Amino acid sequence: MRLIDEQALADITFGSTILGSGGGGDPYVGMLLVRDAIRRRGAIQMVDVDEVPDDANVVFIAGIGAPGVIIEKLPRAVEYERVLRDLERFTGMRFDYVCPSEAGGFNAVTPFATASAVGVPVIDADGMGRAFPSLELVTPTLYGASATPMVMIDEHDNTMFLESESNAWAEDYARAAVVASGANGVMAVYPMTGAQAKEWLVRGTVTAAEELGRAVREARAAHTSPVEAVLSAHGGVLLFTGKIDAVKRENTRGWTIGEAELVGLDGDEGSRFTLMFQNENLAAMRDGHFVATTPDLIMMLDLDSGEPIPTERIRYGYRVAIIGLPADARWRTERGLRVAGPRRFGYEVDYRPVENARSSLKWAPSQT
Amino acid sequence: MRLIDEQALADITFGSTILGSGGGGDPYVGMLLVRDAIRRRGAIQMVDVDEVPDDANVVFIAGIGAPGVIIEKLPRAVEYERVLRDLERFTGMRFDYVCPSEAGGFNAVTPFATASAVGVPVIDADGMGRAFPSLELVTPTLYGASATPMVMIDEHDNTMFLESESNAWAEDYARAAVVASGANGVMAVYPMTGAQAKEWLVRGTVTAAEELGRAVREARAAHTSPVEAVLSAHGGVLLFTGKIDAVKRENTRGWTIGEAELVGLDGDEGSRFTLMFQNENLAAMRDGHFVATTPDLIMMLDLDSGEPIPTERIRYGYRVAIIGLPADARWRTERGLRVAGPRRFGYEVDYRPVENARSSLKWAPSQT
Repeated sequence: MRLIDEQALADITFGSTILGSGGGGDPYVGMLLVRDAIRRRGAIQMVDVDEVPDDANVVFIAGIGAPGVIIEKLPRAVEYERVLRDLERFTGMRFDYVCPSEAGGFNAVTPFATASAVGVPVIDADGMGRAFPSLELVTPTLYGASATPMVMIDEHDNTMFLESESNAWAEDYARAAVVASGANGVMAVYPMTGAQAKEWLVRGTVTAAEELGRAVREARAAHTSPVEAVLSAHGGVLLFTGKIDAVKRENTRGWTIGEAELVGLDGDEGSRFTLMFQNENLAAMRDGHFVATTPDLIMMLDLDSGEPIPTERIRYGYRVAIIGLPADARWRTERGLRVAGPRRFGYEVDYRPVENARSSLKWAPSQT
Repeated sequence: MRLIDEQALADITFGSTILGSGGGGDPYVGMLLVRDAIRRRGAIQMVDVDEVPDDANVVFIAGIGAPGVIIEKLPRAVEYERVLRDLERFTGMRFDYVCPSEAGGFNAVTPFATASAVGVPVIDADGMGRAFPSLELVTPTLYGASATPMVMIDEHDNTMFLESESNAWAEDYARAAVVASGANGVMAVYPMTGAQAKEWLVRGTVTAAEELGRAVREARAAHTSPVEAVLSAHGGVLLFTGKIDAVKRENTRGWTIGEAELVGLDGDEGSRFTLMFQNENLAAMRDGHFVATTPDLIMMLDLDSGEPIPTERIRYGYRVAIIGLPADARWRTERGLRVAGPRRFGYEVDYRPVENARSSLKWAPSQT
């Protein structure tokens, strides 16, 4: 067990933006909510999943909504407290731990708001090891886990309790409720035991986000390359260095879909690179050949500041580094790829581990 | 208390189509479901609302979905049983009576399926005295009643339990769930006590539907005018007799919106009549002047057979009678008109009771 204070929260927030792979929603307003909770009630307990008793009850806490809405409206702390109490009221169970559903973006920090208000620890793990745009795309789904019973509260205080026949239905109902309420929602979803959490979750991802955030913060202070710091901290693959030459982007039904064209800089002069995104960065081609696809993480960082660039903010002229990072091993199984591989998102290509692009690419310092 | 047998069910079904005022959904498949229940378990108890103890628990049972979907797929009896059991499970209450939410169309008969399966009586009353296209447009809303806690089950067995902050939100969530599941749903909604049922509901409307159905059946057998039979049975106003000259109709998001133009026959030669509908018939003009609007009932019957014509089946050339029927007195109050009056549906005209058109119109035999 350790305590998450304001500095740790700030690092987790920055690191989760990197792990968001261009999506996941801006964690900034989530951070404000949690920072306020820390200032009022003190640092928040975080435990390793191995510290959780097998018979404990664990649940994901997650916000849901259009990213634009989340940015415009601050979430309310009371909803992050009530959502867990309501799940307890409906199920008659008591929940001992909360956990992020995703390590990337907004939902990497929201469970800390519940943890502080209710007085339970956060587990240093998540259900994706990254960000994905759908409630069903979590590792528990690969084990046949059910997203429900779940509770969702919207900001008008409507409370929906759902028992669904599949995690895809749970996603559809939650999304429909967001559209109906025209607002953000907060969910307590995927109830599981401690034993299941140990088997199902991606471990140590909150700490991984924190380490990424700290590495960039320290590199900035030391005036060294933040991109190199990210590569060193997390063992990623530097896929490309270049300048944004063109962006095509559409916003449809809360999705940010499009692609960015890059021309090479530094060691990549003369090459071109295409980054394809659907909320998250999901596939990348170098000179017409795929070099990385979902479920591996594809991250675009500003070359000078190390600032991760969300897909909705990619602009012509930005000088960036593209970094690939291997996904959790379970996403790389046949079952994992069926749920979250490239064809699931409409890219007609077989998955190849991002680190296998090694031969034709230079590697991060930590990998050589 | 009396027993509803197959003949009574058939008459209620026909009469509820008349009270559907062109909408409410085809009760035929609901009737099949209930007829099967009667054949398997016997006639179903129906009680007057005055027979219900004040401290009894009462709830509306209602199907929801696009009418087209309801026609294509037979509802499943098991959902009509489970929806009440699930509301009991979630609320910890026991429900002693079920009741139709609307007297017109599909939902006039669906509560009998629950009643038969669970073994509770149906109350001879409803929450509209007609059909309306929205869950919030019920007389309990006029008393500040809440639609929730409610349960909705879809045909995939997804179960949604909702606590909403307003009846408009309950409607939006239920509608969103129908869209998300692409299917029909069954709801147990507006839980109330026996005392509240006595104050809030429109009384005797199942019997009224039965009397209308029987009147037409007997008129057909006696080769007398079924339109006259309807007017005699229910004291309506004959607004127009004519032939459909033109129909404009759009189907958007499950709504059937448009208008029909009629040219006069019999005593109405030389006059024109416009019937405006949004699922239900909601307003009518004679020679350019409004003669009837919601919340009063406006019904179009085939002149020869007495068959009510749903808005989605109005065709050029039909010879029809248009009948007006006063709405329940609570719809005619200032509050009732704010919720269900003509302006609520976009008709910029003040409400006038349909029977006040008397001076310029001939009346039904029973009214003279």
